[in-house]
Amino acid sequence: MLGEKDIGKKLAGEQAANEVQDGMKVGLGSGSTVYWMVKRLGERVQQGLKVEGIPSSNQTEQWAKEFGVPLTNFSQVDYLDVTIDGADEVDENLNLIKGGGGALFREKVIAEAAKKFVIIVDQSKVVTQLGAYPLPVEVLPFGWEMAAKSIEALGCEWKLRRRNNEIFVTDNGNYILDCDFGMIPNPEELHKQLKMIVGVVETGLFANMADKVIIGGRETTKTIEA
Amino acid sequence: MLGEKDIGKKLAGEQAANEVQDGMKVGLGSGSTVYWMVKRLGERVQQGLKVEGIPSSNQTEQWAKEFGVPLTNFSQVDYLDVTIDGADEVDENLNLIKGGGGALFREKVIAEAAKKFVIIVDQSKVVTQLGAYPLPVEVLPFGWEMAAKSIEALGCEWKLRRRNNEIFVTDNGNYILDCDFGMIPNPEELHKQLKMIVGVVETGLFANMADKVIIGGRETTKTIEA
Repeated sequence: MLGEKDIGKKLAGEQAANEVQDGMKVGLGSGSTVYWMVKRLGERVQQGLKVEGIPSSNQTEQWAKEFGVPLTNFSQVDYLDVTIDGADEVDENLNLIKGGGGALFREKVIAEAAKKFVIIVDQSKVVTQLGAYPLPVEVLPFGWEMAAKSIEALGCEWKLRRRNNEIFVTDNGNYILDCDFGMIPNPEELHKQLKMIVGVVETGLFANMADKVIIGGRETTKTIEA
Repeated sequence: MLGEKDIGKKLAGEQAANEVQDGMKVGLGSGSTVYWMVKRLGERVQQGLKVEGIPSSNQTEQWAKEFGVPLTNFSQVDYLDVTIDGADEVDENLNLIKGGGGALFREKVIAEAAKKFVIIVDQSKVVTQLGAYPLPVEVLPFGWEMAAKSIEALGCEWKLRRRNNEIFVTDNGNYILDCDFGMIPNPEELHKQLKMIVGVVETGLFANMADKVIIGGRETTKTIEA
């Protein structure tokens, strides 16, 4: 049986998949909420829906193949109609922290490439101000220690992400620093400061990007539009 | 016999190596002028000089091993005393275009990490304004086409760098776009605009970073300090 969070994820994911229209090019985010979206999208494809997806992680690519969602890539298409993705935190202005799963860079690429960027979350991800969740920052391996010093100077404590005692490596071959800045009053400004640092590939701050957030509760969903 | 450019490269490289002091941690740039610097530094190490270098490319690492320059890395040291590197263009304000060899990211890391950043070039690299040399911009492979569109929108023509008919891949596993912006009146501003683009890892613009340029001529060198 699904727990309360999982029910919310499933409801939000399925609703987003149900809103996808025939012929659309769809950016497929990453994470446990996206799982439900891809699964439902696959069901609709079996029923005749024509879509093409670009996945943001190897994991999502596997799900798409498993559920029968046809895939494409940026050498074939030069925009997406909609990108549907989860988030680790969403604030009231639809700013996001993403990257808990490590796919922040590719997620940002498909978000940027989309005419519409839809976020699917369970209720627990909604906050008044970003920052309780440590901000993931993707850095190149060479000289990551120098990048970490510059990031620290912006006022955070960071940890190099590990998994099974090994340094976690992204699908792009890079590292992730999980950065605790405390509350983040100005996400756009912090993103700019971080992105300018030599070695920073991308940050998990998605400021002023989301067009719509679908929040899954115990029985229903709630939608916020930008 | 060496041609005129090569003589200039050799003179500049050797002078920079001669200025390295005992006990210094040295960032080792990349390219044909750096070759002479590493070679001379190796000779001085044989004569008893104690230094440790961090190379900016696999090629430079090979040279350092060949000439006997001891190496270290950023998990061992947290700053460099001096970084010595070449450039594709140097203007009168000591702004640089680098990255013709493809090592721009690591070169920028060792430049940033250094207390002093010394450029070694032959006379042909000195220009009044940057931009005759196409600007190298390193981009992540995933969605590079989207990054290229954003870069193009800043007003350039770009080419995806190839070598032997294959896409050129940097030591960091990324691609390079060679971007012809024409003359570049404001290198710092253009760098910022480019670096903010999703997918851009680093640019070949080194603005306000060099402390000193050693220009090798036919028989002597000329030095410009910032």
